[in-house]
Amino acid sequence: MHAITIPEPGGPEALVWDEVPDPVPGEGEVLVEVAASAVNRADILQRQGFYDPPPGASRYPGLECSGRIAALGPGVSGWAVGDEVCALLSGGGYAEKVAVPAGQLLPVPAGVGLRQAAALPEVTCTVWSNVFMVAHLRPGETLLVHGGSSGIGTMAIQLARAVGAKVAVTAGTEEKLGRCAELGAEILINYREQDFVEEIRRATDGAGADVILDNMGAKYLDRNVRALAVNGRLAIIGMQGGAKGELNIGALLSKRAAISATSLRARPLGEKAAIVAAVREHVWPLLADGQVRPVVDREVPMRDAAAAHRLLEESGHIGKVLLVAS
Amino acid sequence: MHAITIPEPGGPEALVWDEVPDPVPGEGEVLVEVAASAVNRADILQRQGFYDPPPGASRYPGLECSGRIAALGPGVSGWAVGDEVCALLSGGGYAEKVAVPAGQLLPVPAGVGLRQAAALPEVTCTVWSNVFMVAHLRPGETLLVHGGSSGIGTMAIQLARAVGAKVAVTAGTEEKLGRCAELGAEILINYREQDFVEEIRRATDGAGADVILDNMGAKYLDRNVRALAVNGRLAIIGMQGGAKGELNIGALLSKRAAISATSLRARPLGEKAAIVAAVREHVWPLLADGQVRPVVDREVPMRDAAAAHRLLEESGHIGKVLLVAS
Repeated sequence: MHAITIPEPGGPEALVWDEVPDPVPGEGEVLVEVAASAVNRADILQRQGFYDPPPGASRYPGLECSGRIAALGPGVSGWAVGDEVCALLSGGGYAEKVAVPAGQLLPVPAGVGLRQAAALPEVTCTVWSNVFMVAHLRPGETLLVHGGSSGIGTMAIQLARAVGAKVAVTAGTEEKLGRCAELGAEILINYREQDFVEEIRRATDGAGADVILDNMGAKYLDRNVRALAVNGRLAIIGMQGGAKGELNIGALLSKRAAISATSLRARPLGEKAAIVAAVREHVWPLLADGQVRPVVDREVPMRDAAAAHRLLEESGHIGKVLLVAS
Repeated sequence: MHAITIPEPGGPEALVWDEVPDPVPGEGEVLVEVAASAVNRADILQRQGFYDPPPGASRYPGLECSGRIAALGPGVSGWAVGDEVCALLSGGGYAEKVAVPAGQLLPVPAGVGLRQAAALPEVTCTVWSNVFMVAHLRPGETLLVHGGSSGIGTMAIQLARAVGAKVAVTAGTEEKLGRCAELGAEILINYREQDFVEEIRRATDGAGADVILDNMGAKYLDRNVRALAVNGRLAIIGMQGGAKGELNIGALLSKRAAISATSLRARPLGEKAAIVAAVREHVWPLLADGQVRPVVDREVPMRDAAAAHRLLEESGHIGKVLLVAS
């Protein structure tokens, strides 16, 4: 088969479409013939040499895919060859085939195209596990999503709205904010021109955000704590603004607030399967009835993964950038 | 009645036993004739002028008491004049009488003396709300308690053991560590001579602590994050080591860990009542059957509150220091 390999870490040109051995599904795994994968920030870090795959994972990039089951490994039940699926991966999505633990498979939801479904696993699992399973966003509460027009952001807006929460977003252009508004965001903050702490307070009668979904890490840490409401929860899922920052424990304590930080990729199989099962139970029905939709910026041929990485690095996209099989 | 007043903030001598008007129980409150109160670190901060009572609270110090109900305010049911109780207060415990919202009352547990019961409200409510309601300590997990011989520490050790968790403590003398061991702590760390990060790792096969109950804040922040296990929870309840510290978000994220910070005093009535109800349901049966005991260092006459404050400031005590009515 072919896969995107990274012979030497570097810029987008480091991604090389090459012939490689087919993966073999192990115990409890299935082999998926990939229809599409999608680009995540973590793929860029991996390409740059800053984020090695965890032990046992494929060396090729790609944390999600959609496609058809081509073969079942030993001990797999509940799935059949030919099933249309999407999957959360610990690597290997940028390829014609990938082996996946069966616990990380999801059926393609009704009303969603096979390629489009590759836009779903990372964003639904990340948003559900952080905003709902860890931070317990409740109806009537306010969620602040940084990077509202990203793949994660566009899904977070929709899921929070679907459970009856109010959504605030930050983004860097009026076009992006407009798209967030179409998806249901009510509080729109242009971070290039406005102070999100002031804006979220103004929009909530001084209360602040009950939950914040953050991809910036250190750069926003102090402002995020200031933007939290009493009993607020800050869920950090990325460190695009650095890994070490000053924490005002006094402010956190006076608000009885909490900070969590998670990633999906390094979780053991059992935890991933539990998250995938929760997503199937809670999010899949919302996709099937059209309340929540995958947001796809564009499709790029997988062999041109370098072009897709450039798109993400320029941050001009809205939603997910897919890599499709040719 | 008499109460300890603070005419001018300062050292222990700032505490003055003086004649003051009797409190009047408002709607939903009872008047308690105080048998004993107990000293908390927050009382010292209040005496020094660094921790003003929240709006509506008594100006006198004292966050807990035991005694007999002397009168019922309007709208109180389920309690009667003469009942022996202990209570979580937002102030006013260093006095002969105090008015208390009925939701913050607890009966004196079977087998616990009336004065001894004043040692229970703050420590049981703080430990239960942080270690169990927020951090969800589970059987088989490891809890690290900083200041294991403090009032909070001695209760945290006993409650964690009662639910089947393993307990590690830090303390500054062998005598204090020995007392923690008698209460059920299995991992004993002398913080003056040992590195608690190394010691907790060594004692848990490298895993670290699942939950840490911390009273040091900034000074221990980085080490606490390093001492956490995967999926670990750091519960901060004090800032004896400062309020601002550098947070390694990368380390937190790689462990999928969380940090919470809370205090009891500023919580609204409803939250306090919910914690008190949970303590009555979960902790009171353990006191009644003797599995868990109040740990009292000594009793000091209330008019000598200054002496009791000096004891706490010198950190020579083990467990709670009570202030008893004369």
